[in-house]
Amino acid sequence: MIRAAIFDVFGTVVDWRGGIAQGLAPVLAAKGIAVDPVAIAEAWRAEYDPSMQPIRSGARSYVPLDVLHRENLDRVLSAFGLEAHFGLEERDDMTRLWERLPPWPDATGSLRNLARSHLIAPCSNGSIAMMARLARHAGLPWHCVLGADIARDFKPAPEVYLASARALRLQPSDVVMVSTHAHDLAAAQANGLATAFIPRPRQGDGQGRAEAGKWTYTARDLADLTDQLAA
Amino acid sequence: MIRAAIFDVFGTVVDWRGGIAQGLAPVLAAKGIAVDPVAIAEAWRAEYDPSMQPIRSGARSYVPLDVLHRENLDRVLSAFGLEAHFGLEERDDMTRLWERLPPWPDATGSLRNLARSHLIAPCSNGSIAMMARLARHAGLPWHCVLGADIARDFKPAPEVYLASARALRLQPSDVVMVSTHAHDLAAAQANGLATAFIPRPRQGDGQGRAEAGKWTYTARDLADLTDQLAA
Repeated sequence: MIRAAIFDVFGTVVDWRGGIAQGLAPVLAAKGIAVDPVAIAEAWRAEYDPSMQPIRSGARSYVPLDVLHRENLDRVLSAFGLEAHFGLEERDDMTRLWERLPPWPDATGSLRNLARSHLIAPCSNGSIAMMARLARHAGLPWHCVLGADIARDFKPAPEVYLASARALRLQPSDVVMVSTHAHDLAAAQANGLATAFIPRPRQGDGQGRAEAGKWTYTARDLADLTDQLAA
Repeated sequence: MIRAAIFDVFGTVVDWRGGIAQGLAPVLAAKGIAVDPVAIAEAWRAEYDPSMQPIRSGARSYVPLDVLHRENLDRVLSAFGLEAHFGLEERDDMTRLWERLPPWPDATGSLRNLARSHLIAPCSNGSIAMMARLARHAGLPWHCVLGADIARDFKPAPEVYLASARALRLQPSDVVMVSTHAHDLAAAQANGLATAFIPRPRQGDGQGRAEAGKWTYTARDLADLTDQLAA
């Protein structure tokens, strides 16, 4: 009996690629920089996993993802030869784009429906500060915020999934992890959680769909998943 | 500039006395027990602060308030001579009454309005598990859950207020603590937070009202506070 659904957010609930690119476009245009904002968004996201690795391995103490995103932006701007164009305050503003990403069209309504029957919460690598602002911006009706900040580690470290279930006073098997990322679901499954795969355009869902038989639920979108969980 | 409002919950947002008494009444009636349910509710609540004290002092490791409420119920039932009437499962059920308390009439609508302009979150001694279930039950539109579980200590310990501001990536002075309990506001104030007092019937607000000049905001109710914060 699934009592709670916990969600990957970047990619699964909100469109990070489109949102970052749309947010960067006017900033680049205002400075006459002719670089594809999607390329910057993808380069920024590519820094994401390597930057968490020293924390997962214990080589670095936990810092929230906001801090890593800000550090990674410096690296990305240098890689594009743009470091001279952006001051510290502008870089801080750009980093806050991660807190104003657009929800996928089915997300807010489906979460609102699911919230009636289940506990719902993000289980993201984003911090409480990021998730709270994103909830306000995108109208995401979470009951609480779980994930990296409460575990002080990053997915796919087991503790992130286990601490999230524990914080809800539930067994891992009472909780479904919802994600478009196959590696996220595989880690949740290895730690005893139920799993739900949702395909999202250009979010690296190819592997998840190919492994569809592995997951507890495979749904077309969040509306479909909500129907399956309510059944 | 206040960016976030964090809330005491038991007494300030929901009516613990009425809710627990109304929840206990049918349980007592079904067993033919002629004890005033309000008396049991008040005795249960009276165990609350003493039971947190060993954790605040460091004599006991942190456990969520759910665990303390369950332990305290055993003590209360014994004090009323009722220990033979209730099995373990019934006691667990009774403890979950704290997650189904009614919101004060102005709470849900005011929070919904305030959520548009400010980050809003509980800063309660209740656990994430309790706050998430209470949010679902009472329709409280929090952006995240702060408070005891993220600080692993109980109010009025400074760390609960400071960890809550930190989790939002805000300075304490950017955050207003909203409570009907004067000692809660005094601790928030001592740690640099703004404060807002709201009177609630029979929630021990006499001291808060008497000290009205001490607080950043003094409001008639949550609707009034929302107006003041939006001004």
